[in-house]
Amino acid sequence: MADEYDAYVPEMVETRRRLHAHPELGWTEFETTALVAQRLQALGFEIHLGTEVVNPEAVLGRDPKAAKAAEERARAHGVPEEILQRMGGYTGCVGILDTGRPGPTLAFRHDMDALPIQEITDPKSGHLPAVEGFASTVKGVMHACGHDSHTATGLGVAHWLSDHKAELCGRIKLIFQPAEEGTRGAGAMVAAGVVDDVDWFFGAHVGTVAKPGEIVIQPDGYMATTKFDVNYTGVPSHAGGNPEKGRSALIAAADAAVMLTAITRTSEGDTRVAVGRLDAGEGRNITPVHAHMECEVRGSTFAANDYMFSRAQEVVKGSAEMMGVKYEIIKTGQAGVIETTDAALAAMHKAAGEIPGIKVRDYHNAGGSEDCTLFMHRVAEHGGNPGFFLFGCNHHGHHRPDFDIQDTKNMKPAFLVFVNLARDICGRRA
Amino acid sequence: MADEYDAYVPEMVETRRRLHAHPELGWTEFETTALVAQRLQALGFEIHLGTEVVNPEAVLGRDPKAAKAAEERARAHGVPEEILQRMGGYTGCVGILDTGRPGPTLAFRHDMDALPIQEITDPKSGHLPAVEGFASTVKGVMHACGHDSHTATGLGVAHWLSDHKAELCGRIKLIFQPAEEGTRGAGAMVAAGVVDDVDWFFGAHVGTVAKPGEIVIQPDGYMATTKFDVNYTGVPSHAGGNPEKGRSALIAAADAAVMLTAITRTSEGDTRVAVGRLDAGEGRNITPVHAHMECEVRGSTFAANDYMFSRAQEVVKGSAEMMGVKYEIIKTGQAGVIETTDAALAAMHKAAGEIPGIKVRDYHNAGGSEDCTLFMHRVAEHGGNPGFFLFGCNHHGHHRPDFDIQDTKNMKPAFLVFVNLARDICGRRA
Amino acid sequence: MADEYDAYVPEMVETRRRLHAHPELGWTEFETTALVAQRLQALGFEIHLGTEVVNPEAVLGRDPKAAKAAEERARAHGVPEEILQRMGGYTGCVGILDTGRPGPTLAFRHDMDALPIQEITDPKSGHLPAVEGFASTVKGVMHACGHDSHTATGLGVAHWLSDHKAELCGRIKLIFQPAEEGTRGAGAMVAAGVVDDVDWFFGAHVGTVAKPGEIVIQPDGYMATTKFDVNYTGVPSHAGGNPEKGRSALIAAADAAVMLTAITRTSEGDTRVAVGRLDAGEGRNITPVHAHMECEVRGSTFAANDYMFSRAQEVVKGSAEMMGVKYEIIKTGQAGVIETTDAALAAMHKAAGEIPGIKVRDYHNAGGSEDCTLFMHRVAEHGGNPGFFLFGCNHHGHHRPDFDIQDTKNMKPAFLVFVNLARDICGRRA
Amino acid sequence: MADEYDAYVPEMVETRRRLHAHPELGWTEFETTALVAQRLQALGFEIHLGTEVVNPEAVLGRDPKAAKAAEERARAHGVPEEILQRMGGYTGCVGILDTGRPGPTLAFRHDMDALPIQEITDPKSGHLPAVEGFASTVKGVMHACGHDSHTATGLGVAHWLSDHKAELCGRIKLIFQPAEEGTRGAGAMVAAGVVDDVDWFFGAHVGTVAKPGEIVIQPDGYMATTKFDVNYTGVPSHAGGNPEKGRSALIAAADAAVMLTAITRTSEGDTRVAVGRLDAGEGRNITPVHAHMECEVRGSTFAANDYMFSRAQEVVKGSAEMMGVKYEIIKTGQAGVIETTDAALAAMHKAAGEIPGIKVRDYHNAGGSEDCTLFMHRVAEHGGNPGFFLFGCNHHGHHRPDFDIQDTKNMKPAFLVFVNLARDICGRRA
Repeated sequence: MADEYDAYVPEMVETRRRLHAHPELGWTEFETTALVAQRLQALGFEIHLGTEVVNPEAVLGRDPKAAKAAEERARAHGVPEEILQRMGGYTGCVGILDTGRPGPTLAFRHDMDALPIQEITDPKSGHLPAVEGFASTVKGVMHACGHDSHTATGLGVAHWLSDHKAELCGRIKLIFQPAEEGTRGAGAMVAAGVVDDVDWFFGAHVGTVAKPGEIVIQPDGYMATTKFDVNYTGVPSHAGGNPEKGRSALIAAADAAVMLTAITRTSEGDTRVAVGRLDAGEGRNITPVHAHMECEVRGSTFAANDYMFSRAQEVVKGSAEMMGVKYEIIKTGQAGVIETTDAALAAMHKAAGEIPGIKVRDYHNAGGSEDCTLFMHRVAEHGGNPGFFLFGCNHHGHHRPDFDIQDTKNMKPAFLVFVNLARDICGRRA
Repeated sequence: MADEYDAYVPEMVETRRRLHAHPELGWTEFETTALVAQRLQALGFEIHLGTEVVNPEAVLGRDPKAAKAAEERARAHGVPEEILQRMGGYTGCVGILDTGRPGPTLAFRHDMDALPIQEITDPKSGHLPAVEGFASTVKGVMHACGHDSHTATGLGVAHWLSDHKAELCGRIKLIFQPAEEGTRGAGAMVAAGVVDDVDWFFGAHVGTVAKPGEIVIQPDGYMATTKFDVNYTGVPSHAGGNPEKGRSALIAAADAAVMLTAITRTSEGDTRVAVGRLDAGEGRNITPVHAHMECEVRGSTFAANDYMFSRAQEVVKGSAEMMGVKYEIIKTGQAGVIETTDAALAAMHKAAGEIPGIKVRDYHNAGGSEDCTLFMHRVAEHGGNPGFFLFGCNHHGHHRPDFDIQDTKNMKPAFLVFVNLARDICGRRA
Repeated sequence: MADEYDAYVPEMVETRRRLHAHPELGWTEFETTALVAQRLQALGFEIHLGTEVVNPEAVLGRDPKAAKAAEERARAHGVPEEILQRMGGYTGCVGILDTGRPGPTLAFRHDMDALPIQEITDPKSGHLPAVEGFASTVKGVMHACGHDSHTATGLGVAHWLSDHKAELCGRIKLIFQPAEEGTRGAGAMVAAGVVDDVDWFFGAHVGTVAKPGEIVIQPDGYMATTKFDVNYTGVPSHAGGNPEKGRSALIAAADAAVMLTAITRTSEGDTRVAVGRLDAGEGRNITPVHAHMECEVRGSTFAANDYMFSRAQEVVKGSAEMMGVKYEIIKTGQAGVIETTDAALAAMHKAAGEIPGIKVRDYHNAGGSEDCTLFMHRVAEHGGNPGFFLFGCNHHGHHRPDFDIQDTKNMKPAFLVFVNLARDICGRRA
Repeated sequence: MADEYDAYVPEMVETRRRLHAHPELGWTEFETTALVAQRLQALGFEIHLGTEVVNPEAVLGRDPKAAKAAEERARAHGVPEEILQRMGGYTGCVGILDTGRPGPTLAFRHDMDALPIQEITDPKSGHLPAVEGFASTVKGVMHACGHDSHTATGLGVAHWLSDHKAELCGRIKLIFQPAEEGTRGAGAMVAAGVVDDVDWFFGAHVGTVAKPGEIVIQPDGYMATTKFDVNYTGVPSHAGGNPEKGRSALIAAADAAVMLTAITRTSEGDTRVAVGRLDAGEGRNITPVHAHMECEVRGSTFAANDYMFSRAQEVVKGSAEMMGVKYEIIKTGQAGVIETTDAALAAMHKAAGEIPGIKVRDYHNAGGSEDCTLFMHRVAEHGGNPGFFLFGCNHHGHHRPDFDIQDTKNMKPAFLVFVNLARDICGRRA
């Protein structure tokens, strides 16, 4: 059932495979950002990069050393100095296509980061990227969640928008977000005001519950979450000789771990709290000087999650006070719940419904977290219409060494939903 | 083996039995204080009462309502208004015999309070106070620790001192202390400066490890201790309906109870910590608003105990902060360890050694606590010589309903140690 | 708008007021049970009493002493010995009207117990029971939740059923349940098999969200709950002298209180856990021998609540093991969530909808707990149709000293729902 | 002041430096053991090796892989197969010199193991072993506690004993113990019965409070200790998706860490408890499967330490039960307090007092732990006379990369104490 849109597919597949072979972890997507920026510019988009679209003060979970090293690597790989200068050490890109005609501001969001997973590279495994030679070339890093396809789809959409600019009105923003894994990046783009002027906003993800040939629309769901690390610093002493001179960071953390888990439930929604890692102490007979905890809270509403994080901070502070140790809380990630509007849901249903051979369904109450919700929250706050959908693929599970999305078949439906949304929302009025 | 001192015994026995029949709890010893004051005054002592010898700001574990009621009862029983006025609501008396001749300042300390124990009053029990008709006439209150004999001995010594004033030099202070039980009273007398000018200081207790016919001298021992109550005030809510609106005082107390017990050991000495009582909450399904804990710490040195109490305060504060509840810490008692000097030990050995038929021995490392140690600490601080001894009696155990001291035999040796000390230390120089 | 049903109202009002004046707490409803039994018997019902309808092994929260005293009081007040003998010390009654004709088994459930609340008895207060002279005659006990009206309505329905037996088929069971407060009684009747043969089952409650003139149908809601007490028994010792000989029940309870609160959340539903009371210890310097906790868990599903209680038992056991103390867990109450069927909902909507002047509406997600849910669960388990509704009244809040239901107006609608259900479900087939 | 003993010094120094250059960690002292065994055999001692003198069931803190690797290395370095076979995979050697004449059994104990510390090897540092070319040749392993000098002294004493056998009576046992660091080895030699027949027993350590020219005799001191690791194994689950399916090893460990620290003090002696390391969990949002704790308890008496370890095991077991996780407790080290006799103290004073230019003093209450105390305890149990002394050296602190003992001067005094003890105790009776 060939159609005019098929022309955009080979380019999207090629882009996706190029990204797949060169994955970059969150906050190190310098080469990906440069590729996106150069393409968008070539297509006539006005581009904004790095600190222009990311507020450094709101950045979460970024390792400055790793970012610096990645920037150097990008430079060595030939990324133009001018682009790196504009980025200012931070990844992320927003491309704006201004039709020059009055109309709504429409935004699409695409995330770009990969995961610290070693991909299967043996062709005998049957893993498609290995068989066809586009498996990750970076040891221990892999696009195992499909963000490569998100970015490639975004660039395909950019191409179509550029080709059809004359038929459109208003402004279209393509948001290429860093560091979605760990829900670290969206908040910093929101804080930079990237969607403050957006009337319609859409994001998408490949896979999860969506099977090949399906577009799944999410009217609600995800749990709001705050990820945070806690570090305690105690005072050392010989545990036998003069224990009273020590202040145990370990005991502060241990009591906090229990008391965090014991934060009272709330009627504001279902909640979660997890202390997933605790590492403390230097040796059996030394009063522990350091303790490091990795924690997260979740809530089925923003309010429930805020309650949990607010109480968590009290618990950590009190535990440090109890033991006379110092503490710091470092927020490393944040996401919300899906907030949408009837208009946005209707727009997605229409856009997906027009695609031949595609099944459209709603899905409630997805587990996990997605920081696209933070863009949606901001858009909803100022009266815009935010929406989120899934596009299908076969997979054994995300975040696995054998994750693949069968790009030749499965990117086109997502591309079409975006294109249809653009035509419906920004189609030039007679 | 009759001697000149036998003349003082019947009066001491009579006084002791009168006090035994009319016991008063700590900080309610209005009638006892009045009796002491009137006797001392009649014997030519200059007297100081209540707030003159007790610093109200340093008073621990005093129930103002109970004190007020006791004062009224004393008034009703005919205690002169003038004495009650001088007391100012606080019990305790210090009598000073100034010989007018240069010489050292010598102090003896006698405690006056009874216990909340119901004495056996059935004569068939064989319990001597019941058999001879001087058992407690106050329901649920009993001199079950022998402080009646301490006070009576002190008044016997006062009589002897008055009789022999001409043979003495210097000044002699007789300190009649309220509220030794719970180690509540000594600190307030020390804070009032009662022993600031004292060169030699001696206290004594009947029984414990001392058997009839023994004087036992303590070169060290007792554990320093701080007794304290903790009250938390939380915020109520329906535990099912809106748990997040509540702040549980119970959980704050529970975590504190564990963390108090977990205060690190110290090389500054052996320590103890106990949470003996915890009462919290209003009902099964209400977030607990109140929690009340009764605690104590101990240390084999002042430093060890201070460390424990200092850490305890941090723990309580931190636990309140963790749960977002209010707290208060109320110190209810305090005592130290025995501090003495070679001179004081020698003086006691000499004074006791001269008593015919009495065995003198040293005893180390007594358990329990005794707030006489606070007087001793202050005296030692300014270079004086403090000492403490035990005088024997047969008993089944202190703080029991059948405790008795066989006064006709066992008060005389204590009386003689004090008299000999007075003669040795304040004997008029040729 | 007088009708044939008005004839039943005066009797119901009189019965309700008689019960209101003579309230009985849970598991002590001997006189109420006897009154119910005698009425049902007179109306031609086959009756079953006490241990015939209550399984003693499944009884929760019953104080044997209070039950015995209440039985004696009932005897003194003239309750026939034969009835008391049949009860066997346990309250509760089931009356069965067997029409002799084939047909479904229909059950209605009415609870009978009062609350430990002192009613306002001053007529000047305007409180209707005080004004009209039927306020509680039992000090500190009051029908402050309207169970008097439930029982009275049940007897009114019994009268109507008896009058119209010839028009009915099948069997009708009227279940008069003890001890609903604290959700203690239903489980024991379910365990006795009282609803094992029931095809249709309905229960009702006055007030809560239902206003006068309203019948409110609950398609779901309530939280499943288990109430339980925990008692620890430790070993005493002097906290200063030989702390190692003691085993602190207080510390076991304190750690358990925190760890109970820290039971992990579950994806099986929203949950609650509360430690509402903790009382432990004997004195400041004695290792605590006793600790008593009053706890409850809740879940928005049976599974979620079962998970919580199962984990709670592990926590308590482990905490006792940690401290080397003994423990017991005493279940004191239990309730579930509403389980119903479309058929039952339709039947209630029809029955209520036929009542002139009554507004019918659905209500979701009521807070609190109601042990009628345990009957409903059993009926649903074997394929029957259980339902629950509310009938309105004006009130300032349940469990208050001024609670009243304006019986002359507000009992008739409930009576009519039951009567209509009986006619619809057990109406004689042509 | 040259004397006949000087002849033994160069050999001891050479041996010590050879050992220093080839340090071996606890339970891997295959080459050291072989060197000792070959020397003793050459000197006419009957030798016992490995499992003949070490009970494998009582071995603590031994890594089988590391032991195996060390055995292979020894084999590669030319240690005769016969010796390795006799060792049976376990290090340690006991040499017996039987004079054939009746007399007491005298034992000396020397420990052989090194520490996981990187020695300073730069000659410019001035560190003597680096300057004179005998610094450690094994990366990351160093004789930083002087056990090389202990072993070398023991072999020097063996030489003297062999030379003077004709002047001696009874039997002399030289015990060369593995794995003193972490107090891991002595218990297994005691369990093998190595000192069951010993009448007099002496051990020694270089340095600590002893200065050059000093022999320090310890009449008491050290804290008894038990070192142990705790491992918990929980059940993983996604902390957001289905937390109820997980069982957190981290929370079990955290509660245990607090409750271990909260083990009640004991009147049986001063105590310590430390949780020095806690490592738990796999990732922020995964219910932690593993938790590893490194702990130790101490007591100023065997009884106090036994109490602590007994309670610790209850706490760990209960914490696992609370969370439904598995646990294991692995004892990794054990030591006691010094038990000696007046006779042993007198013998050491005499032996040391005869050495020209040496100052002899007593030292009480040393901190730290020493597993020689376990030999001493067994010897005391069967009525023998155990003793322990220190011999001095200048040092900046043990367990440091620059630790040295100035062997040419400081080994001779220790050698002489042993020799004098041998002559005094096993000197041939006329």
